[in-house]
This record gives sequence, C-alpha cells and structure tokens, in this order.
Amino acid sequence: MGNISGHYFRVATFGESHGPAMGLIIDGLPAGVRIEENQIQLELNRRKPGNSPFVSPRKEDDQIEILSGLTDNLTNGAPLAMIARNVNQKPKDYSAINKMFRPGHADWTYYKKYGLEPQSGGGRSSGRETLSRVAAGAVARMLLKPLGITVSAATLSVGPIKSLRFDWDFAYGDPLLFLDPDLAIQAHQFVLSKHKLGDSVGAVIELKAEGVPAGWGDPVFDKLNARLGGAFFSIGAVKAVEFGQGLTLAQMLGSEANDPMGPSGPTTNNHGGILGGISTGRPIRARLFIKPTPSIAIEQKTIDLNQQNATIKVHGRHDPCLAPRLAPVAEAMCLITLADFFLAPPSRL
Amino acid sequence: MGNISGHYFRVATFGESHGPAMGLIIDGLPAGVRIEENQIQLELNRRKPGNSPFVSPRKEDDQIEILSGLTDNLTNGAPLAMIARNVNQKPKDYSAINKMFRPGHADWTYYKKYGLEPQSGGGRSSGRETLSRVAAGAVARMLLKPLGITVSAATLSVGPIKSLRFDWDFAYGDPLLFLDPDLAIQAHQFVLSKHKLGDSVGAVIELKAEGVPAGWGDPVFDKLNARLGGAFFSIGAVKAVEFGQGLTLAQMLGSEANDPMGPSGPTTNNHGGILGGISTGRPIRARLFIKPTPSIAIEQKTIDLNQQNATIKVHGRHDPCLAPRLAPVAEAMCLITLADFFLAPPSRL
Amino acid sequence: MGNISGHYFRVATFGESHGPAMGLIIDGLPAGVRIEENQIQLELNRRKPGNSPFVSPRKEDDQIEILSGLTDNLTNGAPLAMIARNVNQKPKDYSAINKMFRPGHADWTYYKKYGLEPQSGGGRSSGRETLSRVAAGAVARMLLKPLGITVSAATLSVGPIKSLRFDWDFAYGDPLLFLDPDLAIQAHQFVLSKHKLGDSVGAVIELKAEGVPAGWGDPVFDKLNARLGGAFFSIGAVKAVEFGQGLTLAQMLGSEANDPMGPSGPTTNNHGGILGGISTGRPIRARLFIKPTPSIAIEQKTIDLNQQNATIKVHGRHDPCLAPRLAPVAEAMCLITLADFFLAPPSRL
Amino acid sequence: MGNISGHYFRVATFGESHGPAMGLIIDGLPAGVRIEENQIQLELNRRKPGNSPFVSPRKEDDQIEILSGLTDNLTNGAPLAMIARNVNQKPKDYSAINKMFRPGHADWTYYKKYGLEPQSGGGRSSGRETLSRVAAGAVARMLLKPLGITVSAATLSVGPIKSLRFDWDFAYGDPLLFLDPDLAIQAHQFVLSKHKLGDSVGAVIELKAEGVPAGWGDPVFDKLNARLGGAFFSIGAVKAVEFGQGLTLAQMLGSEANDPMGPSGPTTNNHGGILGGISTGRPIRARLFIKPTPSIAIEQKTIDLNQQNATIKVHGRHDPCLAPRLAPVAEAMCLITLADFFLAPPSRL
Repeated sequence: MGNISGHYFRVATFGESHGPAMGLIIDGLPAGVRIEENQIQLELNRRKPGNSPFVSPRKEDDQIEILSGLTDNLTNGAPLAMIARNVNQKPKDYSAINKMFRPGHADWTYYKKYGLEPQSGGGRSSGRETLSRVAAGAVARMLLKPLGITVSAATLSVGPIKSLRFDWDFAYGDPLLFLDPDLAIQAHQFVLSKHKLGDSVGAVIELKAEGVPAGWGDPVFDKLNARLGGAFFSIGAVKAVEFGQGLTLAQMLGSEANDPMGPSGPTTNNHGGILGGISTGRPIRARLFIKPTPSIAIEQKTIDLNQQNATIKVHGRHDPCLAPRLAPVAEAMCLITLADFFLAPPSRL
Repeated sequence: MGNISGHYFRVATFGESHGPAMGLIIDGLPAGVRIEENQIQLELNRRKPGNSPFVSPRKEDDQIEILSGLTDNLTNGAPLAMIARNVNQKPKDYSAINKMFRPGHADWTYYKKYGLEPQSGGGRSSGRETLSRVAAGAVARMLLKPLGITVSAATLSVGPIKSLRFDWDFAYGDPLLFLDPDLAIQAHQFVLSKHKLGDSVGAVIELKAEGVPAGWGDPVFDKLNARLGGAFFSIGAVKAVEFGQGLTLAQMLGSEANDPMGPSGPTTNNHGGILGGISTGRPIRARLFIKPTPSIAIEQKTIDLNQQNATIKVHGRHDPCLAPRLAPVAEAMCLITLADFFLAPPSRL
Repeated sequence: MGNISGHYFRVATFGESHGPAMGLIIDGLPAGVRIEENQIQLELNRRKPGNSPFVSPRKEDDQIEILSGLTDNLTNGAPLAMIARNVNQKPKDYSAINKMFRPGHADWTYYKKYGLEPQSGGGRSSGRETLSRVAAGAVARMLLKPLGITVSAATLSVGPIKSLRFDWDFAYGDPLLFLDPDLAIQAHQFVLSKHKLGDSVGAVIELKAEGVPAGWGDPVFDKLNARLGGAFFSIGAVKAVEFGQGLTLAQMLGSEANDPMGPSGPTTNNHGGILGGISTGRPIRARLFIKPTPSIAIEQKTIDLNQQNATIKVHGRHDPCLAPRLAPVAEAMCLITLADFFLAPPSRL
Repeated sequence: MGNISGHYFRVATFGESHGPAMGLIIDGLPAGVRIEENQIQLELNRRKPGNSPFVSPRKEDDQIEILSGLTDNLTNGAPLAMIARNVNQKPKDYSAINKMFRPGHADWTYYKKYGLEPQSGGGRSSGRETLSRVAAGAVARMLLKPLGITVSAATLSVGPIKSLRFDWDFAYGDPLLFLDPDLAIQAHQFVLSKHKLGDSVGAVIELKAEGVPAGWGDPVFDKLNARLGGAFFSIGAVKAVEFGQGLTLAQMLGSEANDPMGPSGPTTNNHGGILGGISTGRPIRARLFIKPTPSIAIEQKTIDLNQQNATIKVHGRHDPCLAPRLAPVAEAMCLITLADFFLAPPSRL
C-alpha cells in the first residue's frame, strides 16, 4: 500500500532497486498536453548518482521509456506509463552484512512490517524509488508550465554552514546545489571532510513555487500546506518541514507575524504563500530538514537477524549528503501536488 | 472538497461557526467498539473556549449528540454520526469590519477561491471546525486504547519561553498546558502581558504517541510521518512540524544522528519513532510550530472589499495564544491517523 | 465502510431506522449553487411511505434540516449537511420474531458480518437509509438543472403486467408510478390482490436521463455505465440492470444492434446513450429489475438465533411492491453519479 | 481517469493497442503471497485472440514480464508491476476508413471527450486493454485460492441458442466456451454462419464464484453486488447484468422469490449468493449480457470526421462473438473485486 498518490493527477509508482525496473503510471492527465521525453530524461539526470563527489559514485543509467499515453507527443487521455530498467545492480554478495540491521535505515521497520530480511532489497525504502517521482514531477512541470508556474529547490545549508544569500542560478550549477556562492567552497569542504572520515552530514533544502495563483488548496484535511507537507515528509530523510517563516513565527507576536494586506493580497510573505490552507498568490516557500545519510563507514552498534548484538560499518557507494539528490525530488513532490490542485473540480460555478 | 480524511477510518466533517451545527461522520468503525459518550464530551470540553484567560472568553456549549452507529453503546458497523449545535452565535453586526480582509486570516484566500465576502462566516476556516476533529479523535482513542496506545500533546514553549523539563501531569492541569512547572508562571505572564497590549503570541506544541507497535505506516506516499505531517499541517496556524530531533538532525553528522540498534529496535530515539515511514515501536515524537493568533486588537494595514486601503483592529473574543486550544486538536489528528493505520489491510499473510 | 460515494461530488450518509436521525454530508459542491430546501423536501415526500395502498402505511415525517453549507440559499463551498429525525420509531416489542432470520432479508448477512442479532435495526439495510440518497439526489438535480439535464424513473411493469406505452406525465400522478395508463388499473389490482394474500410482487423500473452531453464517463473502470450500474445495484432489491436494449442485444446480430451514425451522433439508441463507457449525447436509458418485497405475511421456513428451525410470518406495515418507493431512489443514484462526472477534472486542455 | 480500481487490492492499468506495451500495477498485495508467473501466462493465453474460429485470428504474443514486487516468487509488500509488449501492431494504413466513426464503437465518444480522431488507437477502448485485467485477476486468484475460492465463467448462450444444462468441464474445453455439450455444435454453426455473412452475434456469459464466505461486501454504496455489477459493466460490450434469478425475480411473488433459511443460511439460491449487499456463503451467480461485436463487414451508415454522411464496412480480424474472449475478463473482474473485499479492514473487533 501507499504507492498511489493524488486525487486527480494520480501517480502510481513501482520498482525495487534490485528488481528489473522502476516505473510509474500517471492517470488523470487531460488530453492535449505536450510531453517532451528528453525533458523528462534531463530531470532524471539531475537526480542521478555519480555526478559529483557529493553524491554516491554509483552509475545508474536511468534511461526512461514511455510505454503509453501519447499520440504524436501529446497526451491522449490514457494513462502515461514509463519505466527505467535497473542496469547497475551489484550482485548481493555481502552476505555477512546483509543479515544486520543498519542503524537509521528502514531495515528494522520493513522486517517488522513485512518480515523481510534486512537489506534484502525487496522493499521500497531505497532512494532509487524516487526516480519514479522525478519522472512524474517532470510531467507535472510540463502541465503547469503554460500557467507560468515554476518550482525550484536547492541546498540552503549543510551541517552548520547556512547560506546568507540566495543565488538560484549559481545553485543550479553547483554540484552541491548550494545557494550561497560565497559559502559554497566552505560547504563543499565541510561535506568532503566528513565524508573522508566515513561520516555523513545533514542539510536543509530551500524550496519555492512561483506563479501559483490564489485559490489553490482545500479547507480542512486537504489544505495546500497539509498536502505539500505530507508530500515532503514522504521523502525519506526529511525530518522537519516549515512553510514561510514557520519556525520563527512560533516565537513572534501577532503584530510581527501578520502580513499586511494590499490590493493584490499580502504585501509581505511571512506566511509562505498559503493562508487558511489556500494559496494567496505569493510565492510558496518551504524548507525541508534532511537528516544525514544513515549509511556511514563508521562502526555502529546494531543487531543481526538472530537478535545478537553486533557492530556494523556500512561501506559502499553512499551519498555523503542527501541534499543535492533530494532537491529534485522535493521539486517533483511539489509539482505533483500542485498538478493535483490544478486539475481539481471547480470551486465555484 | 477536502472535508473527508482517511482510507479505512474515514472521517467526514461539516459545519460553519455561523451555521446551525458542527458535526461529523465516521465510516469504517468495526462493530463492537465501546463508545462512551461522556468521554467524547470530556475531550470536547478540553478544546472549548472560555475556560481560562489564555483562550477566548467565548462561551460555546459544545453539547455532542450521537445520531447513529451505536447499539447499546457498542458500534454496530454503521457510520457513527455526531452533531453539536452552535448556540452562542453572536449577531453579525460589525458591518464595517466585515468588509475588510483580516491580515493573517483566510479571508483573502476564501474570497479568491469561493468568492465569499471577508468574515462572512461561510467558510470552514474558523477554529470551531476543529470540534469535529476532536470528537473523531475521541472515538479513535477508544478504538486504540485496548492496544495500549496513548497520545498526549502540551505546550512546549510560548514566544521565547521554552520548557526545560517535561511534566505531563502538570501540563494537563495548567490552563496554558505548559510542560515546565518551573517556567509556567513566567509563560502565563508573557502571554497575558502581550494580550493586554492587544497582541498575540506564537507557541510550540510537544506531541507524543506511546504504545504504537512497530510496523505501522506504508512505504512511499503513505509513510506514517507523511500522513501525520499532513494531518498536523491541516490544523490552521501550524507552520512547521518536526519528528524526533528533526531540526537538529539537519545539523548533525550521521554518526551522531543514527540511533544504535538493540534487540527490540533502536535504543535511542532521535528518529522520533519512525524509520522509512514505518513505526519502530519507540514513542512517536513530534513538534508543531504555531503562529500567533492572527486576530489582534492592534491596528494593521489592509484593504476592504473594494480594494481600497484601510486599517483594521480585530476586536473580539480571541485566543491570546492558540497552543492550549490546538493541543487537543493535535492529539485528535494523531489519533485519527493512527486509527487509520490500525484498520489497514494486513501487510503480510 | 461503504457509506461514502463519488470522487468529486462526494456523498457520505448515515442513520439507522431505529436511531435518532438519518442524514448525509455532500462534500465537493462548488460555491454558488442555489439550493431550494423545499425542493429537497418535495423529493423526500415522493419516497415517503404512507402515501398510497401500494406502499407501507407507516407514517414517516421526513422533515429535512440543513445544518451547514449554505449562505443565503447558495452553496458556499463548505460541505452541505442535512438530517431528518426519526419520529415514528415503533417500540421493538416483537421479541419473539426478532430473534428469527427473515428470508430474503439482510438479517443473515449482517449477523455473519457484524454479529448483529436479526432485526436488531442496528444495520444499514433498512429502506429508510435511502432517504439520505434522495436528499443528495435532490441537490444533484439542482446542480445539473442549469445544464438541461433531467432524470426520470417510473414503473415499467409489476409481475407479469408490462407497460406497452410510456406516459411519463401519467406515471408521475399514478400511485404505483405506472407508465401505461391503459394497464394501470390492471397493475393496481394485481398488486393489491397479492397483497391481500399477504404476498408481494416484483417489478421493473424504467429510467431515463435526458440532456447529458456527449463525453461524460471515463475509460476502463469508471465507465459511465459501470458507475451507474454500480449505483443502481447499490439499491436494495435491485437484482438486474440493463442499459439500452441490453437484454435483447445479447440475442441480436451486429447488423441489427449497431446504431447508425449521423452528424450529431448515433441516430438510434439501442446503446442507451453510452458507448465505450462514455455518454453519446443520446438519452441514457436503463432498466432496474426489482425483486418482490421480502417481508410477507405468508408462513416461511427459517431459523432462529439458536440455529433452530422455525417458521415466520412477517406482519407489519410493508410495501406490497417496492417500485414506487425505489423509483425516486433510482433517480437519485443516477443524479448523484451524473453530478460526479459533471464535476470531474477536464478531459482535455 | 478511470484506470485505477479498488480500495485495498488496487489495480492501475495502462496501455493502448497501438503503443509499445500494456501493463499494470497492483498495490496492496500483502507480503508472502506465492506468485506463479507461468500461471499468469496461462490465464493470459485464455483471453488471447487467434485460438479458434470464434475469435479474431490476430496473433498477439502476450508475453508477460514481472518488473517488481517479488522476492523468490513471493510478494514482498511492494507493488507488483507487469508489462506485455505489443508485438503485432499492424501499420495504420487504412487511411480512408480511419477518419470514419465506426457504429457501435467508442470512436464517437472518445472524439467528443478527448478530441481524438476516430480509430486513432490512442484511446483505451480496445479490447486489448483487458489483458491487464486478466493479469491482475490471475494474481487475485492466487491470493484467494488458499481460501478455497474459485471463479468460473463460460458461454451460456449465443444469439437464440441457450444452454439447457451446464457442463463446466466441457465448456472449458470448447473453443466457444459453450456450457451445453448437446447444443455446442449448433452454437458453433450459428456463430460461423453469421460470421460468414460478415455479421457478429450477441451472447450471455454465466459466472459463478464458489467458496466465498458469508460476510463479504459493505452496506449502501459498496454492496458486493454493486461492486461486482460495476466491475462487470466496466467490461466493454456488457449491456446487462443479473444476479441470481435477477430478471425472473422481477416477475415473481415474494413467496416464490424468498429463499428459505436453514442452519447454514439460505437453503436455495434465487438471491445468487448476496443478500443486503453482503455474501451469504452460497455461490455467487451472475449473468453478463454481451452485445454483438460492433465491427462487422456489412455496410453501415455513418459519418466521417467532417460530419459528412458515409458508409463503412469494418473489415479486419474481428471476433465473431465476444463471449469466449470476455469470459476470462469477467472472471478477472470478479476475482479483483473479491480480492478487494478479502483485504478489507475488519468488520468487527
């Protein structure tokens, strides 16, 4: 369960990293949307490992194939299905380690829920699962583009190093997706130095969605921030989410927190583009707090499948910092959620 | 849209503060659950205004009436429906103010979405809407109680004053629900002093769910933290949410962040009871960051329905701090979400 | 479970005949729909018992009360909730009979599913449940009326007596809702003669929906006929459903069955207004085959709660023929289903 | 829209006959279900064309490939995804005909809904779409088999020739799946004689589900017959559905229609295994009334894309009678629906 999202732009995903392929179906796409396959490929390439020292050196050839839903590059009202074969599956020969529960991983919970052996690769907790989300997000982006909606995510901070200014163009060219050009080198060095010690680092992702018109989102359970918040927390490693000046607002007075109103809505944006669960027309702003990659080459206490105490070092090709891999996923989840509200039934006649 | 939640424990709510009644339907309750009507009433009383200087002095007589679903106090498999009449509706005679958009409120977004006049009371953004959630949460609590599951929420901080120790028994007796007995007086005074100035204060709510067995939650889109996060963000005024050491984890190293594993799961709880989107068996811990009540008696810039600049002071019976009213709602949303996973189909045969 | 229907026009119903009230919530209504409360009342009156010798002489005072969702008689985007109190609940004093399973009733299945005693009135199988559907259907009718959509249902046949011509005006004035004025007396007499013997009769309901534009319905699982068919079968006592010349088509050749195409679609209507699961623009035509009322005053073999053989005569105020009560329900289910497709997301950009 | 079914056993399908592949995802399968890939293949082979003179001579190589969800042939809790490549796609060179709307087909409605040109192959109305359903049904069968549930469907009648006795073993070996060995030759000849004239014939499919325990199905909207009825009507060409003695019941008296009750439920089965929308424990019996294949080689009146009158003969490799192809699909839809109720949350604690 849990592999289908959305009410109107419905995304169903599948695939395990050790299986034959990853993939997805999008149901609910109206006919007539132009889909550029190479654009989907470009977005997938952004989330691929092996691109820089900050992410896993694994080579994944995420070659997408569209199986249905298009006629002459336009959606035809049928479900859009896509797959990407898994071609770089290493043989599972680390027999010793794969009976141990990796701390900070889903090994324990998948074992308790499904009875799966730790690291059996049978589950859905692998980061590779996000491939399907990014592909769906790319389609959502094409759907929303004619409305002038853009969604961007980059690295705000790694460990203690936090961007003081935001240069989005710079970030998109930086291997760490770091927002502040002045601090980028320092940020790089921080990550690499910890990685050299076998460790990993936490990070914060800054996300903005611009061009979303006022009036998207529903009251009560389907508030735009509820849906976006849920979507962000569905990304593994996200442990906190804030909208607008979220954390700070909790320490402010009402007279400081309220955004004054002008003829086109709130004139400032402490609220992060959402009031009462519905978009105000101002940019949506959110931050995702990412825990350090749990796979580290430092010895940790754990147990094996027989409940015996043990120690584990998780060697392998791991991401020293998840932010540059997860920023495209955060964009995708935002886009998928916005697409769902775009296609929602009319709120008034 | 947006007024129905859940896959298996399905809650549909209705009601506007200026209408005849609030209410809800729960579909999916198995037969044979003992429902204590007075217990539901007690939970509703906890969220009622008028109980202390920290919440609105409005008197609301939230008398619940069960309309269906019970035979001899046991659920009978039919939907459980409840209503509470709105008896303290003040006449809408503030004709001047109610053509102005209140800053920080949903007036603007409901106007853009539905075409409703500001403060028309027609929408679903009133805090009174949470009555239905608390009633549903009370039922969820009765469903989960035999499993040994308890859910508690209290005030961790108001403005800059943050609890240093947690005394849950104290909190439940404190009108501000403040967790730290040593700082409670200081917290009270802070809230009252700002309220005297016509202002309001932000706060943080601490929430814990104990007794949740390992294995609840689904991969990918329906992760337990995704569903809980979405549920918490569905509460008006919640602007950030963290699980476990969420915010801090983003600044930590993997070697610090990972919880070691012992024979019964993680031996520490940085992860807040959820790994890979599935419960570990450790207590679930979350924090909800609450913005200050947007209704303040201090003059603010705004516009009226004709897009003309104006100033507004929102007099009336407002909560100086939302935390004591929203903590029971946070519990309710957690309970409703957990009930949904409790009733989920089997994860293995 | 099973008490919520629809994707976009979502109807949640509740209530047992022996409980305090029946009711419903409609979520998904756009703002700005004019709702005439007295119109809903009129539709409820049509399904009320006690109106003629052909239906139960029970007096039910189905006084509807709207609890939310309206501002000045216009929908405001919030859920529309309605209840009707149960005022004519007879005391449950037939202690002997109510431990016996009534043949043809849901007593057995509710006992097996929920553990409820036969005739405990705790379940949802009472015909009174349809009150909520008719109320929802009345709202759907108001939503669809501006599009020129009308839905009508009447009695095509009772037992062996089948209408040879259709006079819808006549039918709406006939207590049996019989379509053929020439055979109506004969039909009346047939029903009354069987009723006098303590027996009941089966019937067929003719339904038409006119004005539905071409293009409603979705491929595969949500075909318009799949959704309508499911909706009709959700009405207790409906044991068969056909669309267009359904039954006859199974005996025809393709050259006879196919409707020729003209500039505005099919020029004949063997297909009953739906091709490939999507409306053609021609009237939608369906027939619902209704079993005889299972409650009869003739002795039948059964068992009691202790599995002992017994005989039962179900005395009481039962409908000799269900058709006149169920025709308004059939209209309602059709209207609810059509409203759902009316509010569906766009099928092309 | 409309390509995802079920609440708990959720099936999402995709694929157009002229596209690269057909496929499906099943979400909600518990871990630990043994899946025999060759068993799925065998079921697909049953629905394949080209097997007999009664179905299209098209060769489709429905080679299934499982892409995810299995570990050592056992489900692992992840979605099960499967595809089958389309290898026998004829070039679309009938340029003249494919601007004409074929009578009895979905050309017109897909054109009105999506703007697709007639016969563009872009839609989802091709019979090839049912491949995904049969694959899902094969999995459902494996899930239900340990409970002793079997589902069978065969041809009851073609045109006017109706089976007088049921020999299921014979039917499974007959190319027309005809139930009555005595009339099978006559039935064959009838179909072939009409086919020789370029015509096609309607039929009735008999379906039975044995071993379904009492208590499956939900009240009101999700009645077992509502869900099954909707599932059957989702099969193209099904124009009527009855349960038990459905059609006949409408002409019967209550005293004839009611099934007497014995210690293990109803002792006869007029009701077809379902009372009050819930299974009684008796075999579920249904009939599906199938219209003649709309593609016929006889000249018919139609229009072209420019709304000009025209005549059309649909040559090609069409099924003279749809029953033998649709019987496996009917089984599949029944199995999928039953699997959904098998996995439903508990109805009592």
